[in-house]
Amino acid sequence: MDNIFELDLNKIDFSKILNTAESDLNRLFPLNRSILNEGVLTSLEILQENIDFEIIKIKTGYNCYDWVVPEEWVIKDAYIKIGNNKIIDFKENNLHVLNYSEHVDREMSYDELLPHLYYIEEQPNAIPYRTSYYKKNWGFCLSYNQFKELDKSATYIVKIDSKFIPGNICIAEKIIHGKVKDEILISAYSCHPSMANDSLSGVIVWSMVLNFLQKTNPYYTYRFVLLPETIGAIAYLHYREKEIKENTKRAFVLTTCGGPGKFGMKSSFIGDDLIDISVKLAFNHNGIEYLHYPFDINGSDERQYSSPYFRIPCVTISKDKYYEYKEYHTSLDNLSFVKIGYIYDSFKLYLYSLQNLELGNKIYLSLNPAGEPFLTKRELYSAIGITISNKLNSDLHHSKKEYSTLKDFKITGEDTDIILWLMFYGDGQNNLMEISRKINKSIYDLFRVAQILTNLNLLREI
Amino acid sequence: MDNIFELDLNKIDFSKILNTAESDLNRLFPLNRSILNEGVLTSLEILQENIDFEIIKIKTGYNCYDWVVPEEWVIKDAYIKIGNNKIIDFKENNLHVLNYSEHVDREMSYDELLPHLYYIEEQPNAIPYRTSYYKKNWGFCLSYNQFKELDKSATYIVKIDSKFIPGNICIAEKIIHGKVKDEILISAYSCHPSMANDSLSGVIVWSMVLNFLQKTNPYYTYRFVLLPETIGAIAYLHYREKEIKENTKRAFVLTTCGGPGKFGMKSSFIGDDLIDISVKLAFNHNGIEYLHYPFDINGSDERQYSSPYFRIPCVTISKDKYYEYKEYHTSLDNLSFVKIGYIYDSFKLYLYSLQNLELGNKIYLSLNPAGEPFLTKRELYSAIGITISNKLNSDLHHSKKEYSTLKDFKITGEDTDIILWLMFYGDGQNNLMEISRKINKSIYDLFRVAQILTNLNLLREI
Amino acid sequence: MDNIFELDLNKIDFSKILNTAESDLNRLFPLNRSILNEGVLTSLEILQENIDFEIIKIKTGYNCYDWVVPEEWVIKDAYIKIGNNKIIDFKENNLHVLNYSEHVDREMSYDELLPHLYYIEEQPNAIPYRTSYYKKNWGFCLSYNQFKELDKSATYIVKIDSKFIPGNICIAEKIIHGKVKDEILISAYSCHPSMANDSLSGVIVWSMVLNFLQKTNPYYTYRFVLLPETIGAIAYLHYREKEIKENTKRAFVLTTCGGPGKFGMKSSFIGDDLIDISVKLAFNHNGIEYLHYPFDINGSDERQYSSPYFRIPCVTISKDKYYEYKEYHTSLDNLSFVKIGYIYDSFKLYLYSLQNLELGNKIYLSLNPAGEPFLTKRELYSAIGITISNKLNSDLHHSKKEYSTLKDFKITGEDTDIILWLMFYGDGQNNLMEISRKINKSIYDLFRVAQILTNLNLLREI
Repeated sequence: MDNIFELDLNKIDFSKILNTAESDLNRLFPLNRSILNEGVLTSLEILQENIDFEIIKIKTGYNCYDWVVPEEWVIKDAYIKIGNNKIIDFKENNLHVLNYSEHVDREMSYDELLPHLYYIEEQPNAIPYRTSYYKKNWGFCLSYNQFKELDKSATYIVKIDSKFIPGNICIAEKIIHGKVKDEILISAYSCHPSMANDSLSGVIVWSMVLNFLQKTNPYYTYRFVLLPETIGAIAYLHYREKEIKENTKRAFVLTTCGGPGKFGMKSSFIGDDLIDISVKLAFNHNGIEYLHYPFDINGSDERQYSSPYFRIPCVTISKDKYYEYKEYHTSLDNLSFVKIGYIYDSFKLYLYSLQNLELGNKIYLSLNPAGEPFLTKRELYSAIGITISNKLNSDLHHSKKEYSTLKDFKITGEDTDIILWLMFYGDGQNNLMEISRKINKSIYDLFRVAQILTNLNLLREI
Repeated sequence: MDNIFELDLNKIDFSKILNTAESDLNRLFPLNRSILNEGVLTSLEILQENIDFEIIKIKTGYNCYDWVVPEEWVIKDAYIKIGNNKIIDFKENNLHVLNYSEHVDREMSYDELLPHLYYIEEQPNAIPYRTSYYKKNWGFCLSYNQFKELDKSATYIVKIDSKFIPGNICIAEKIIHGKVKDEILISAYSCHPSMANDSLSGVIVWSMVLNFLQKTNPYYTYRFVLLPETIGAIAYLHYREKEIKENTKRAFVLTTCGGPGKFGMKSSFIGDDLIDISVKLAFNHNGIEYLHYPFDINGSDERQYSSPYFRIPCVTISKDKYYEYKEYHTSLDNLSFVKIGYIYDSFKLYLYSLQNLELGNKIYLSLNPAGEPFLTKRELYSAIGITISNKLNSDLHHSKKEYSTLKDFKITGEDTDIILWLMFYGDGQNNLMEISRKINKSIYDLFRVAQILTNLNLLREI
Repeated sequence: MDNIFELDLNKIDFSKILNTAESDLNRLFPLNRSILNEGVLTSLEILQENIDFEIIKIKTGYNCYDWVVPEEWVIKDAYIKIGNNKIIDFKENNLHVLNYSEHVDREMSYDELLPHLYYIEEQPNAIPYRTSYYKKNWGFCLSYNQFKELDKSATYIVKIDSKFIPGNICIAEKIIHGKVKDEILISAYSCHPSMANDSLSGVIVWSMVLNFLQKTNPYYTYRFVLLPETIGAIAYLHYREKEIKENTKRAFVLTTCGGPGKFGMKSSFIGDDLIDISVKLAFNHNGIEYLHYPFDINGSDERQYSSPYFRIPCVTISKDKYYEYKEYHTSLDNLSFVKIGYIYDSFKLYLYSLQNLELGNKIYLSLNPAGEPFLTKRELYSAIGITISNKLNSDLHHSKKEYSTLKDFKITGEDTDIILWLMFYGDGQNNLMEISRKINKSIYDLFRVAQILTNLNLLREI
């Protein structure tokens, strides 16, 4: 097979990919990840058991545009005790420590401790997820219920056993070479600790798409990267600047696609770029309503990829988009909230979107441009598998579905319409994506019928 | 007179054209027409009694693009009998026979007969109209009420006295030469038997427009053709390919414009071509609401004319459009359904649309481009026939209708607005059609006032 | 200071301008103005007490395009008496005389008088304002209540002590030279007698904007003109044709902006010219809903400025637009209807609109185009005066307002968004007006932040 996207995706068995994904989701969730730490590397190694990619390491101190890669964070333990009683314990939940906290080990009063405590009064059961990468600080995150119980007169033993050392940003990278050098970037971020939707769901879909594509030969070249958000993307852009500037034409940024809520898409800064259209058509042709988020400068790594120097249009498919669900950046963004079934649905939508991109730019020229083709003589109906009935009686009242050249038969199915439209638009001016938008048929169906018409010498791909 | 479209159409007496049309409608309705048969030629000869056109004959076997002209169908009689009792009789209604049925003459059981019977359960009184041009078959169409009465144990004597012989597609053609070679094609189809709306109404409007134009000298050249649908259009395009490719710029396809329902227009594939706009303005300036049907590859001969090689934008004005009314393609599409008054209304709308095309591309240049003209000194008001009143008192509260240069008089009528707009748009960039769209005045009114301003040396046609 | 529009208009003290305006409003209202008469010159001299401009005089008989400047109207007195009883007296209200009435001095019957009386039955207390500039006539305007009391059998002594003499159109003109020769024309009309909204409110705003700008050095050059409507504008266009044709790019026509009703804007003939956008943004960023009036050939001097030879796009900001309020062109358009506060609001909107024009075409280039800038290291937050809080607890649930590069701090205020957007759009393709439309921030706020980023070498104005 030439290109896996030329197959009917509905007929492919994804069960193996799905099983791997479910296992990875459960194994990755508990790990403590940050922008540079051990948890990231461990996570990549788990993924590598089933998919193939390189790990690029970019050192502390690396200068990239306006930024410098910071030190690695090493944390062994962290707790708050009263006497021997651990009331907050990092080993119970890695969110309890302000991510990138510096070392602390001393006794203090409630008043000293208070400015270092983070909680959410409105969500009394949730531990917030907080970070302080670039400003030295330390702190603990706890639920409001825990906070309320604190004894204002107690002496607290506060310990964060952490240090900062020279280290590396670890970036997973895999190039799937296609027929053309033009690249689609598939990017997810690896820096969040136990957050299931933001963005572990994106990491899992990233691995599924790579798993699907890794031994295939698509039309476009695909650049898969998994990296810490912001600093990782900036460092990577600098590290691969020449290639990306030359080849990368559009990108998907995968995140928050595993929640129970409504689907959504965040548009590219262009708004109606081919990548936007490919996603919209994927939603439409699957009959899925979705929330539309226009491009916003707040978000994920599209902020870097779409910056003036690179200007790569990026799209994100979401299911409970970041910022928009109340569990966001708390301990409630967990495996009760996220389900592998939701992740699978998002994976399929990304595949449909990629199929739309892969097939959407095909252009077919009519070899019978004057008038319609005489379909009857070719027995084109059976050739394309549509049901033919000469029992007109029962559905004869659907008279609007009849065709003047085809009066002797009643056609069911919609392929005859597609035949006629493909012949009509066969002027070399319309690719399948444009035709799809105009007549509201899926790009895959157009491609499938165009193949048949090509075999019958009625169309020719140009 | 130079161009009949420069006259006010509301002041023309169409009674003679209307009387001819009514007579033709009644004479043509009962005839048995098909794509190649005697009924078509007889129909054309009746029309020729009042309007002048040639009859082109294209022979069986003629190769035209992907098609071959089929044989002519000759049918003398057809019936189903039980004993001596004719229970279905072609001579009672020509729809009873599947159009282009082959010969049959034998006895058979109910079970043998059943696959050859066509009826509509949901419309128990209607005989369906069915055809089988390109796949040899035979059959009878009957009402569901007739079908229900059939005796399942009877022996049926079934006869269709038909044969196929070499013959001709008969096409009516008339060219009205205009000032320019650019052509407007006016096309209707002649192949339907006793169907009053589809498309005998179109045939009648076709003859009315030709009747109106036949001794005139319009701006555009008009190509009138009346031909069997699909095969006739394809054969004709092949026969006149060079002329049509060179000269034919837009087309009207006349059909289903005589029903009691709402007006509609089927747009060209361009959607906002001049021909689309000309029709929309005709509706709007007559205050007529209408249904809008976007271009669809299902339809009539616009399928051929708009095919990639020709790409002629076509519009159809409808009153009960094909596919959309329940009587469509049944014996109920008859002279109880269609009225000459409805046909006349459609005829008028086609004339207004043609007038919009004929006058709409005129461009006038202001000869007083700096500031407004001083209208008072020219007594322009009486010159253009508007009522002047210096009894300001009674309607002085309509102060928004006053003009600063005209404070001494209260103008009634809307011609002063037209004067000012024509002077404003007199920059050589706007033709009357564009001005009409912008200010919502009829093209004819703009033309009428522009003539006056031209006489006063305030405008010059370019 | 380079350009006054680079200041925050909300921090400027306009009280002196406002006091002058209020005084002028009260002094100008009672004067009897016309297109050429003493009242116009007196009015200009009052305005000159506080603002500096030249008075251009264009003589009776001056030929300007299609027009000739008419004679000056001199009126001393006018009344209708029965015996010694003055029942209508010009000295009580200058609207009582049809503007430009010719001389009359004789006794007459009710029937003779009747055709010369103007009143409005539907507004029985209002004296209409009527004119007859170009057709010699005489008449009296009176309220319907006055009209009803007239004795049909009385003998009326009718006197209008008026004459026509060679005179001058008097036009106030002031050029404020800017950095570029491209001009914005600020035009108001001076020909209406005691009409407070139409257009004395426009005259007052005209004087306020000139007062504000007169000692400044803006980017554009400003051409202030105050002239009689229509004939004044046409004469002036002819008088300054070469300069205006070369330099004047857009115009504001100031009128009817002092009523109690809703704000409105009349668009330019282009509809989305920079001047239209600048006004819309002024309304939007002040949270003001307004009526939208598309360009119409009826109106004020935009009719002349936008004529084909000049094609200057003009906008009018209105508050009770001409034609649209029932007091229009009657004695009820007075100082009970118009308030200085309304006029002040319109003045401010004109200033915001001008500021949008002045700053809106600035383009800034990002000096850090690859990825985002690292804002933390610059302590950019305090640099731009936004509140920084590390007490995240209380508002942590507003998680959508957090930024991935700024996780250590909670930003209040919206300047961080502006920073990121300005950097994102810093590709040399987007001026501040376009960015303002896209992200719905005021042009002034964009300019203010862009100044800071320029100082930090993150942006450079091009």
